[in-house]
Amino acid sequence: MGRRIYEHRAQYYETDQMGIIHHANYLHWFEEARIDLMDQMGMGYDVMEKQGIISPVLSVHCEYKSMVRFGETVQILVHLKEYNGIRMTMEYTVLDKESGQLRCVGESRHCFLTRDGKPVSLKRNYIEMDRAFREYTQQEESGI
Amino acid sequence: MGRRIYEHRAQYYETDQMGIIHHANYLHWFEEARIDLMDQMGMGYDVMEKQGIISPVLSVHCEYKSMVRFGETVQILVHLKEYNGIRMTMEYTVLDKESGQLRCVGESRHCFLTRDGKPVSLKRNYIEMDRAFREYTQQEESGI
Amino acid sequence: MGRRIYEHRAQYYETDQMGIIHHANYLHWFEEARIDLMDQMGMGYDVMEKQGIISPVLSVHCEYKSMVRFGETVQILVHLKEYNGIRMTMEYTVLDKESGQLRCVGESRHCFLTRDGKPVSLKRNYIEMDRAFREYTQQEESGI
Amino acid sequence: MGRRIYEHRAQYYETDQMGIIHHANYLHWFEEARIDLMDQMGMGYDVMEKQGIISPVLSVHCEYKSMVRFGETVQILVHLKEYNGIRMTMEYTVLDKESGQLRCVGESRHCFLTRDGKPVSLKRNYIEMDRAFREYTQQEESGI
Repeated sequence: MGRRIYEHRAQYYETDQMGIIHHANYLHWFEEARIDLMDQMGMGYDVMEKQGIISPVLSVHCEYKSMVRFGETVQILVHLKEYNGIRMTMEYTVLDKESGQLRCVGESRHCFLTRDGKPVSLKRNYIEMDRAFREYTQQEESGI
Repeated sequence: MGRRIYEHRAQYYETDQMGIIHHANYLHWFEEARIDLMDQMGMGYDVMEKQGIISPVLSVHCEYKSMVRFGETVQILVHLKEYNGIRMTMEYTVLDKESGQLRCVGESRHCFLTRDGKPVSLKRNYIEMDRAFREYTQQEESGI
Repeated sequence: MGRRIYEHRAQYYETDQMGIIHHANYLHWFEEARIDLMDQMGMGYDVMEKQGIISPVLSVHCEYKSMVRFGETVQILVHLKEYNGIRMTMEYTVLDKESGQLRCVGESRHCFLTRDGKPVSLKRNYIEMDRAFREYTQQEESGI
Repeated sequence: MGRRIYEHRAQYYETDQMGIIHHANYLHWFEEARIDLMDQMGMGYDVMEKQGIISPVLSVHCEYKSMVRFGETVQILVHLKEYNGIRMTMEYTVLDKESGQLRCVGESRHCFLTRDGKPVSLKRNYIEMDRAFREYTQQEESGI
């Protein structure tokens, strides 16, 4: 599914004095790709927030396989790995666009909260959002 | 007045591949120093926001005089240059702590808005805040 | 000249708790647009650095006209205002893509240095680069 | 060992529109604490780089336990968990300074490379550095 590939061009301000992209920026890229995926699912992050739901990060993991340098374009393959109505797990694979070389693999887990920090069950209270997530997880599983 | 000197140690993640601190980070440092000054004035930024007031940046100017490198500590002298009840101007001088060498001079202008973006006159509606700013501006002028 | 318009989508990680894009990120956007312009001039920043030249920022100025929010796309019009063989000035205009509303105007000044910090005259020592900048400045002036 | 506690005050520019510190900044804090620890070990990061060694991040993991807000001070306990002459693992615990509440736990793995990307065995070629790391790991184990 080409539409789940998100592209980012590595910026000068993302480099550090090692001459490579500073490792913290990959979390920004994961976020860009995740938000892009949710847009494509019809579940835009801005839409969610307007309905009073935020989706903070519970954990993040990142394995750096090879370095990204200024000016290179990376492709971020993002995948909704798990969703159970209360939490979700996203998986990321970062590739160099030109060579296809693996740059990084990662994962982030998220929950859903109200603006004042109370847990939200999308399954129970936001049925349309829940359906969008479920449909997408199934599509992923069936490899569509 | 020693208390208006704010110190920041230049971090690795603030460097870029030129081997120096990326220029955009100086705006972060100005903000750190400005917020520290407002704390000292008894007008903490968090206090302001709790009263429903935000203070967005109208303009910023920065002259880079010499480079800052990772691990160096800078001293930021911050000064409330102008305040008229509706707007304020802050001035910044960044020095290397060890050598005293001038790194940067800058300025930022700010207004006061309600959370939904309407201009606020501190002079008219937030008399205590207004007094804190005025007293501070006068202290500055009289060189106390 | 459409090719000098650079687009950036405002990211979640660029917001702050005011609910708008943090003002320091505009300097990142200026940099993205400047590097994109230099690419188009055939004077890519990576090419310059490989020839041993860096181009640090001497000063930056930014007037914030209206707020940018998460998810909005901005168009950055970048313009090589001045170039004299030793220094250059770039000018930026940031517009909301959808409404055309003015978000910000800015300017940055740059010099050219060797890796170890000595001033470089492109005019004298890097004739091809110098020609690229001059041609571009003239194009700009003649409004091509 | 009090000296391994590093403090950071959460900055306004580190917030996002959720009203909390953006999760990517924790990797910055880990780095600040790691560099501070290495300074205390007499193995400053700047010293390492001057000897031609860089220490890129192989992986990072972060579990967010509770939110950090603007103006709060966090204490970062950093611990050299493993070191074998070729790689090291650092562990981080982030606490709210005032309440002692757990904010985050994390881990990062690092290797040692030459500037041009070749693996370095500190054990074999940088005996003094190796000793500093080993002594520190043992101190940690014996709970000194």
